Amino acid sequence: MYSFLNDYSEGAHPRILEMLNKYNYEQNTGYGTDIHCENAKGYIRKLLNREDVDIHFIPGGTQANTIAISSFLRPHQGVISADTGHIHTHETGAIEAAGHKIIAMPNIDGKLTPDEIIKAIEAHTDEHTIQPKMVYISNSTELGSIYKKSELIDIHKVCKENDLILFLDGARLGSALTSDTNDVDIKDLAELCDAFYIGGTKNGALLGEALVIVNDNLKKDFRYFIKQRGAMMAKGFIMGIQFEALFMDDLYFELARHANKMAKKLADIIKNNGYSFLVEPCSNQLFPILPNDILKEMEKEFKFIINGKVDDQHTSIRLVTSWATKEESIKAFKNFFDNFDINKISK
Amino acid sequence: MYSFLNDYSEGAHPRILEMLNKYNYEQNTGYGTDIHCENAKGYIRKLLNREDVDIHFIPGGTQANTIAISSFLRPHQGVISADTGHIHTHETGAIEAAGHKIIAMPNIDGKLTPDEIIKAIEAHTDEHTIQPKMVYISNSTELGSIYKKSELIDIHKVCKENDLILFLDGARLGSALTSDTNDVDIKDLAELCDAFYIGGTKNGALLGEALVIVNDNLKKDFRYFIKQRGAMMAKGFIMGIQFEALFMDDLYFELARHANKMAKKLADIIKNNGYSFLVEPCSNQLFPILPNDILKEMEKEFKFIINGKVDDQHTSIRLVTSWATKEESIKAFKNFFDNFDINKISK
Amino acid sequence: MYSFLNDYSEGAHPRILEMLNKYNYEQNTGYGTDIHCENAKGYIRKLLNREDVDIHFIPGGTQANTIAISSFLRPHQGVISADTGHIHTHETGAIEAAGHKIIAMPNIDGKLTPDEIIKAIEAHTDEHTIQPKMVYISNSTELGSIYKKSELIDIHKVCKENDLILFLDGARLGSALTSDTNDVDIKDLAELCDAFYIGGTKNGALLGEALVIVNDNLKKDFRYFIKQRGAMMAKGFIMGIQFEALFMDDLYFELARHANKMAKKLADIIKNNGYSFLVEPCSNQLFPILPNDILKEMEKEFKFIINGKVDDQHTSIRLVTSWATKEESIKAFKNFFDNFDINKISK
Amino acid sequence: MYSFLNDYSEGAHPRILEMLNKYNYEQNTGYGTDIHCENAKGYIRKLLNREDVDIHFIPGGTQANTIAISSFLRPHQGVISADTGHIHTHETGAIEAAGHKIIAMPNIDGKLTPDEIIKAIEAHTDEHTIQPKMVYISNSTELGSIYKKSELIDIHKVCKENDLILFLDGARLGSALTSDTNDVDIKDLAELCDAFYIGGTKNGALLGEALVIVNDNLKKDFRYFIKQRGAMMAKGFIMGIQFEALFMDDLYFELARHANKMAKKLADIIKNNGYSFLVEPCSNQLFPILPNDILKEMEKEFKFIINGKVDDQHTSIRLVTSWATKEESIKAFKNFFDNFDINKISK
Repeated sequence: MYSFLNDYSEGAHPRILEMLNKYNYEQNTGYGTDIHCENAKGYIRKLLNREDVDIHFIPGGTQANTIAISSFLRPHQGVISADTGHIHTHETGAIEAAGHKIIAMPNIDGKLTPDEIIKAIEAHTDEHTIQPKMVYISNSTELGSIYKKSELIDIHKVCKENDLILFLDGARLGSALTSDTNDVDIKDLAELCDAFYIGGTKNGALLGEALVIVNDNLKKDFRYFIKQRGAMMAKGFIMGIQFEALFMDDLYFELARHANKMAKKLADIIKNNGYSFLVEPCSNQLFPILPNDILKEMEKEFKFIINGKVDDQHTSIRLVTSWATKEESIKAFKNFFDNFDINKISK
Repeated sequence: MYSFLNDYSEGAHPRILEMLNKYNYEQNTGYGTDIHCENAKGYIRKLLNREDVDIHFIPGGTQANTIAISSFLRPHQGVISADTGHIHTHETGAIEAAGHKIIAMPNIDGKLTPDEIIKAIEAHTDEHTIQPKMVYISNSTELGSIYKKSELIDIHKVCKENDLILFLDGARLGSALTSDTNDVDIKDLAELCDAFYIGGTKNGALLGEALVIVNDNLKKDFRYFIKQRGAMMAKGFIMGIQFEALFMDDLYFELARHANKMAKKLADIIKNNGYSFLVEPCSNQLFPILPNDILKEMEKEFKFIINGKVDDQHTSIRLVTSWATKEESIKAFKNFFDNFDINKISK
Repeated sequence: MYSFLNDYSEGAHPRILEMLNKYNYEQNTGYGTDIHCENAKGYIRKLLNREDVDIHFIPGGTQANTIAISSFLRPHQGVISADTGHIHTHETGAIEAAGHKIIAMPNIDGKLTPDEIIKAIEAHTDEHTIQPKMVYISNSTELGSIYKKSELIDIHKVCKENDLILFLDGARLGSALTSDTNDVDIKDLAELCDAFYIGGTKNGALLGEALVIVNDNLKKDFRYFIKQRGAMMAKGFIMGIQFEALFMDDLYFELARHANKMAKKLADIIKNNGYSFLVEPCSNQLFPILPNDILKEMEKEFKFIINGKVDDQHTSIRLVTSWATKEESIKAFKNFFDNFDINKISK
Repeated sequence: MYSFLNDYSEGAHPRILEMLNKYNYEQNTGYGTDIHCENAKGYIRKLLNREDVDIHFIPGGTQANTIAISSFLRPHQGVISADTGHIHTHETGAIEAAGHKIIAMPNIDGKLTPDEIIKAIEAHTDEHTIQPKMVYISNSTELGSIYKKSELIDIHKVCKENDLILFLDGARLGSALTSDTNDVDIKDLAELCDAFYIGGTKNGALLGEALVIVNDNLKKDFRYFIKQRGAMMAKGFIMGIQFEALFMDDLYFELARHANKMAKKLADIIKNNGYSFLVEPCSNQLFPILPNDILKEMEKEFKFIINGKVDDQHTSIRLVTSWATKEESIKAFKNFFDNFDINKISK
């Protein structure tokens, strides 16, 4: 059984585990005040070419989103998101539980557009409605698509013009930035976003997201929020060590490139067999549309998520690859299609 | 420099790291639905001799407290705690941020008494005040003391009589249950508490607390709360693996006994040198009262936390040992006292 | 200048003011525990033919909605509403500020349908999303439409089948129940809803909504919520006195019938002049679609709210009548149309 | 039966009711945007000699406290209060339900001291605890005492030095400022506080508190908070009209002086009979300590609140007078003591 369920099925890349082993008996100070967190921040700042940004390591994505949003906004302010946004669809109302309304707008291929941001602003004009104050986007998106640099620039522009904070969820940032069709440099994010995070959990770490706060106005007292929301790990250094391993050299992007490469192979197999996709594949998440007959057989050998019914005979599914996806899985996938006898099924 | 700052300075016990390595490439399902979590729960249920309890792995203590309290209480209900309780003093208002008032009552050696619980109930009688609905205690306490079985029975009794939920924070439960003066069996907790947790972070794991819900009324939909508060780790299996390692044999208690043994050695050195303690030592946290002159020298060799001023010449400090404390540190501590020349200082 | 802005432009019906005067020097107990609140509850229970319901007087609608929803739901549960629902569009995120997500579904003429409720349920199936637990509807709706009895029965049915609480916002219940096209008896609401409220503010009172809790499971400790959210008025008896005045005889419905009668006259004038409506008028809120040229002139004599652009030449507006609307205003409105010379404008 | 239960037993002063009658059919705009609110604000600004302050009318005290505190603070910040403070003892955890911890410090006669404020600051120094950011005091206090000007200046000073917001709950401000022992001018409050409110409910209005925001940094978007917390009354003009009546001339203070005068008469009767007080009386709340034998008889003729046991034979009670207290009640109280035969009871 091969799993294409997600990119968090395995543990951590061996070089990360080695580092954790290496420093295991070292006595570090608690709560992320240790030397490894400092080192990791240094590497990331260098990569961004920005010494002035604040960086915090947060155990998971829902926490990163909730802490950032509830720290950056006042209670009467809301966040604009694509209606496919993770905060709107898959976080059990975490943002609302923190008191903030999400203004969900129609998406195009999982992406939010400046037009929709403006519509949201125009629909919220006085104290009888929530005040839009932040734009939430993710790169890659929930549908595996990625933002072009020009799209980010346009969103940045509409945010500046309307005094909105731009926050980018980078749970799968590695895959987005190493996509064949990507033209965004990680440095661009520090110029265009007020805050964003670099996901570790879905790119080879046991856990951890590196939240980068660029806008000075959003930096104050941020550690209070991390602590209040239970995200200040006693052994914060284990996130420091992992991000040190990921960013002391090119490992982070190396792992993401691998995931994308494996995804491309899967996509090619599907295309070569004549099937299409909900959204043109470009990162480590694929949403092929396949005949139900095939899926019935496929699920005997592979794990994946059913995305939704397309028509009576077709269903879209989600396939995800990761830093740990093996050639062996790809081969098995190819074999499945090569050996699949549609006529046999139909009988 | 030897650190007695806390019990979360080092990584994880080697047997835990080995297990993480061993299963690193195994493909597990996400969000704590994996086989390792199941195995670990099985070991803990067996230890408790209670197949009917629900068990959830939560990354950290503040999260465990917040999630349990906000799931178990309705918005108009509050929680009674000793005024030294971790939720009252060291969680940045996490419980209040979740909407609940803490009714802080005077402590005796860090412990809450039935008398104070009754006083709290009597002071909150109608809808103009919060409704007391839960009692929060921790074992061991913030001052390193532990509850005797008779004390837990008395607290349990006053809770039952007043329809209060009894919740025990066991961030340092290992140290409490392996204390020389302990007479509580872990099985007792499942009889006396509605819910409690078994701390991993402070007893040899990289992270993780095992929350045990005994009372059937408190079990429903609990995973929603874990997710909503960002504590449902994508790679939940890394907590499962660690608790599997801790409870497949006696490792959890073995580590706690080591910490206590090291603490006892420190305590004996201090006693032998004629100094006293804020609270009689019995677990892995010690609160000796030492002359300021000595402390001034001590902090050149050892790391510890200043607890508070006792009088103009004396200060209480906190020393903490762990599963990783080495004999070498104890020896250095003994050497320090052996070689310390009080007269030299005074000059 | 005549105002059709809303139904809360004037003070209170004279019989209400008289009652307030009459009892002004009487010494009443505080916080709604007085004899007038008891009397008013008695009248309403008799009207509903239900002695078993709990009734609470709440100063305003946003408070009534927030208190009911946050008392009835646990933190991981959400409320399904039409996307035009007042809680979704005009309460500044009050429900989210209380921690609950609103699941907004498409409306038909301002109404929520069983189909949309089922769609919402089907889209929220596990702990990664909020749990739908309540249906919020209002009667009349934000667009002035009203629910037929059969529609309420169908919604009630889908709620029962899916363990959802049905909550009806009756800020304008008087107008709904006295509409010419209404077939719902107020007694039906106590059979079909778990809770609902009877609006006073928009039907002749200075302030106050009578919240009726039918479902026994929702009654416990409700006064704690009223107090905690600042809705327990010290002088609660002033709401008791007003609802006593409204329900000791037929005054409440008399006032609503007047508002509807005045609205019908306005609607007829508009229809007679050949204009249509966004939603067929049936209560005290009208949404005519009028040429912009006419509106330009109309706003010199009348106050009303612009609802939205329909096409380049037409705009929908909102006209609201109340218990206090005078024949004089209607006449002025008729005169306006009679004397309006479309040709003169065009020049 | 005479009631000394509280100062909100009766309706409104006749001049207020007259004004409500007078403007009853006037068509006002909603939500506090009307001319009467403007007029009332003008009168209050003139009284304060400060044209730059923002003023908002809020229906009740718990709302005023909750809205102010949750608007002024960020989620990680707490408010320092005397442990007798209304927000800590009698608001059902409203402040915590809004997410903020109250740092309760020991009181002296119901008052908070600069020393206790400094102790609170010193105990909260890093991100593991809440950040103290506001001081809450009330004048008069829960024990009927009042702040001297020098005390307010000292508290103001410690607030400025520590970047704390000073917020004064003036639910009974009228009684405080017209006390015989008062040396504070209402103008002083605008100099010393960042925000405060002038209570109407307990001084002759049906409902309403006038919240004055002095500090420019606290003004932004405040109406959003009023709306979000359900305190933006549709018929906001009824608060405007009442405060117009109270402040267009000296009525507000006239009513308060009457309450104090009546209280003084009660206090003199008690003193003349040889009894003492928990706190020296100076405003419209008295806390005499009386023999239980007397109280047993007294409660047959008078309503009052039992405050607490003093010793086996004595209990402290609370007596409150108001703008509506009649000489007749005072006479009855005097008669009670004149005719009371202690020996008869003892037999």
